[in-house]
Amino acid sequence: MSLAMKLYGYWRSSSAWRVRTALAFKGLEVEHVPVHLVKGGGQQFSSEFVAKNPMAEVPVLELDDGQLLTQSVAILEYLEEAHPSPALLPREPLLRARVRTLVQIVNSGIQPLQNRVVMSELERGGIVADDWARHFIKRGLTAFEQQVARSGGAFSVGDAPSFADIYLVPQLFNARRFSMPLEEFPTLLRIEQRCYELPAFQKARPENQVDAEPL
Amino acid sequence: MSLAMKLYGYWRSSSAWRVRTALAFKGLEVEHVPVHLVKGGGQQFSSEFVAKNPMAEVPVLELDDGQLLTQSVAILEYLEEAHPSPALLPREPLLRARVRTLVQIVNSGIQPLQNRVVMSELERGGIVADDWARHFIKRGLTAFEQQVARSGGAFSVGDAPSFADIYLVPQLFNARRFSMPLEEFPTLLRIEQRCYELPAFQKARPENQVDAEPL
Repeated sequence: MSLAMKLYGYWRSSSAWRVRTALAFKGLEVEHVPVHLVKGGGQQFSSEFVAKNPMAEVPVLELDDGQLLTQSVAILEYLEEAHPSPALLPREPLLRARVRTLVQIVNSGIQPLQNRVVMSELERGGIVADDWARHFIKRGLTAFEQQVARSGGAFSVGDAPSFADIYLVPQLFNARRFSMPLEEFPTLLRIEQRCYELPAFQKARPENQVDAEPL
Repeated sequence: MSLAMKLYGYWRSSSAWRVRTALAFKGLEVEHVPVHLVKGGGQQFSSEFVAKNPMAEVPVLELDDGQLLTQSVAILEYLEEAHPSPALLPREPLLRARVRTLVQIVNSGIQPLQNRVVMSELERGGIVADDWARHFIKRGLTAFEQQVARSGGAFSVGDAPSFADIYLVPQLFNARRFSMPLEEFPTLLRIEQRCYELPAFQKARPENQVDAEPL
């Protein structure tokens, strides 16, 4: 019987990417279990996987004792409470709020509106999904840039990496997938560069995953 | 100079409603500043308000010292840290994760996909927005129901109200606005009823707000 944690993910899923970064940052080893979101209509819809997550989404973190955690925000907060060091949240409540605001700008303000499920629904309805995605990415990144330009340091909130940076990096990757120009967001690009100087952020990149395909 | 907190909200906004419930539950007094999301194309787009929140969304919580907090999740986590009693999160990390998962099922899994901005974009594109909204509400509430039927008690997680219930109640209200049948969700309806037995949940209802209009 294995006692390792398992992460059900997909190399290009931004939500799984966030969890990979947090795990790597905290030095936690996991077994990666790929769930192919495209092949055969999507393995996330298999009855076996839906039993793990009724939302039919990655990531799912399976703990040593078999408990299942879903939703990247809940997983990251759990990891921070269970493995507080090295920290991914500042200590001061107001700074923690700044981090969590940035997280939600991405997690509820952008990502749900440009994920695969929504893109397919839109295309079925004849809407140009890429324009739609760019609209919401731009709105969210503009808000993120403004807040960070005002209160950021080397990273999104202060001089240490936090949840906010973990959400930012995959969102910038997605923005490029939609061919968005990013020169309006100089602070975000500078922070992204600093993030990629850290081994945890490198390790979590899509192209470095066991199930990676050509980009 | 006033020293009270101010909540910029709108009677029918589910995100503002969540913050109202948490404030009332913790016995915190605030000055309510209505921002009409419909009148005159939406007061949230005024330059004065966008300076407070570049996402042009309610709620915004303005603290005694003028600091501005946005995003309901960040505001609730802040209130819990700054005013821990009465608690809206359990103490055990795994139970806290259960709460936060349910919160995100609503906050990122449902609400962004059926809010006003998205509905208008869809209608411009000729998509039947109500069908779209019902699709995503049903997916999310089904996942919520399954998790709560398994691990809930009197409330969504255990026997005390938590963030999860605060997110559930406005989402059920929205489901009814989209004329969704709710008999598939008996556990959620039972929890909703218990919530409404609590004064904080009554006080936060849309129809009890200063800016309420006929439902």
